[in-house]
Amino acid sequence: MNLLLLQPEDLGANTTTKQITLNDERAKHIRHVLRASAGDTLKIGLLNGLTGKAIITAITGTGVSLEFELRNPPPAKLPLTLILALPRPKMARRIIRAATELGAAEIILLNSYRVDKSYWQSPLVSDAALHKAMLEGLEQAGDTMLPTLRRATRFKPFVEDELPRLLANKIGLLAHPYSDQGPPQAIQQECVLAIGPEGGFIPYECEKLIATGMQSFSLGPRILKTETAVSTLIGRLFL
Amino acid sequence: MNLLLLQPEDLGANTTTKQITLNDERAKHIRHVLRASAGDTLKIGLLNGLTGKAIITAITGTGVSLEFELRNPPPAKLPLTLILALPRPKMARRIIRAATELGAAEIILLNSYRVDKSYWQSPLVSDAALHKAMLEGLEQAGDTMLPTLRRATRFKPFVEDELPRLLANKIGLLAHPYSDQGPPQAIQQECVLAIGPEGGFIPYECEKLIATGMQSFSLGPRILKTETAVSTLIGRLFL
Repeated sequence: MNLLLLQPEDLGANTTTKQITLNDERAKHIRHVLRASAGDTLKIGLLNGLTGKAIITAITGTGVSLEFELRNPPPAKLPLTLILALPRPKMARRIIRAATELGAAEIILLNSYRVDKSYWQSPLVSDAALHKAMLEGLEQAGDTMLPTLRRATRFKPFVEDELPRLLANKIGLLAHPYSDQGPPQAIQQECVLAIGPEGGFIPYECEKLIATGMQSFSLGPRILKTETAVSTLIGRLFL
Repeated sequence: MNLLLLQPEDLGANTTTKQITLNDERAKHIRHVLRASAGDTLKIGLLNGLTGKAIITAITGTGVSLEFELRNPPPAKLPLTLILALPRPKMARRIIRAATELGAAEIILLNSYRVDKSYWQSPLVSDAALHKAMLEGLEQAGDTMLPTLRRATRFKPFVEDELPRLLANKIGLLAHPYSDQGPPQAIQQECVLAIGPEGGFIPYECEKLIATGMQSFSLGPRILKTETAVSTLIGRLFL
């Protein structure tokens, strides 16, 4: 945790408060993982709000009391909408956390022929589980802005009815190991990046995505796991 | 598994054999994960050797028989020596697998002030465990060439006595979240890339690395987990 994330409900109605006492997991983390003591400073942020500094004013039984100021904007998001064929649920949490860490603005989980239907029912990819993964990504990266996350459980209606709107004024990229095009360089404009499931989108799906205006490209001959591919692609395309 | 990896001992003394019957985990994987049947083709490779195609000639009780040819070179390695402060053992396996997947030629696990001493003793980072992780990386990427992996358990002797030799004719880069330099572009030459532990190298360590000829740079204001950083950096610097 590189940033202590406050939730709006931590502050309640009093939006000018500059003091708070935490008694939950965050207090535990400050005490036992960071091993902080009174007088230490921490980076702090308000979910979907500003970041700043907190000073620990007291550590009592189970509580940690802080005085803080929120003055700075969080780091900029990448101009990235990430379309991800729903990964295996065990992996999905980690991949969504990493995409959040890296600053993806929007994440869309898409169905695909090679996505096992049971994945959608897994508690590991419930709204609550993925919300938690995104919070972890924010705390890691020092960010406060939750990405938008949504599910497109039917491939064809999504690609035909929603993707064209998403692609308006954006570059659309399809990471496809078997494309013979290399990746574009340091993208500045808004971008929609689609990454298939393990085994890849099937030819029909690639054709549909390309017909809708996505350009396919490959990072080279190596086939990467989705979790490796997401970070590698974001590093390659945006940073 | 995108490549079935044969070990030299699978072939025994007969180096011209083009047929093999497997009865081990690999056979299980072919039968139950790939759900392949007689007549199907697989990508195959010989550890530290060529790649090619195999045809499944028979599937019996527990065995899978193959006819194969090894003709093609594996994908090129990246010109990369990765120096990694030893990550938490649970993470190390995954990070080494990903670095192998991406094609790092050499991996050096380095001690650092913020590396817990107990990590070095963990069975999760034993030679056997990390060898297995690298094999998984090769099978994923379709590669056959094991990276060189070694341990530098003492920071100062490594940096003073070994690093200067390693850096001869190579560019040395230190990924450091607090550097005010951006990353270099698409590196072609041999490169030594150092990535610190969670929490970063301490200032003394950064100074020693920089004094030895490493240039520090940052990917931006976000603090990344080591596992995210490795793939993102490789994507950013090399692909």
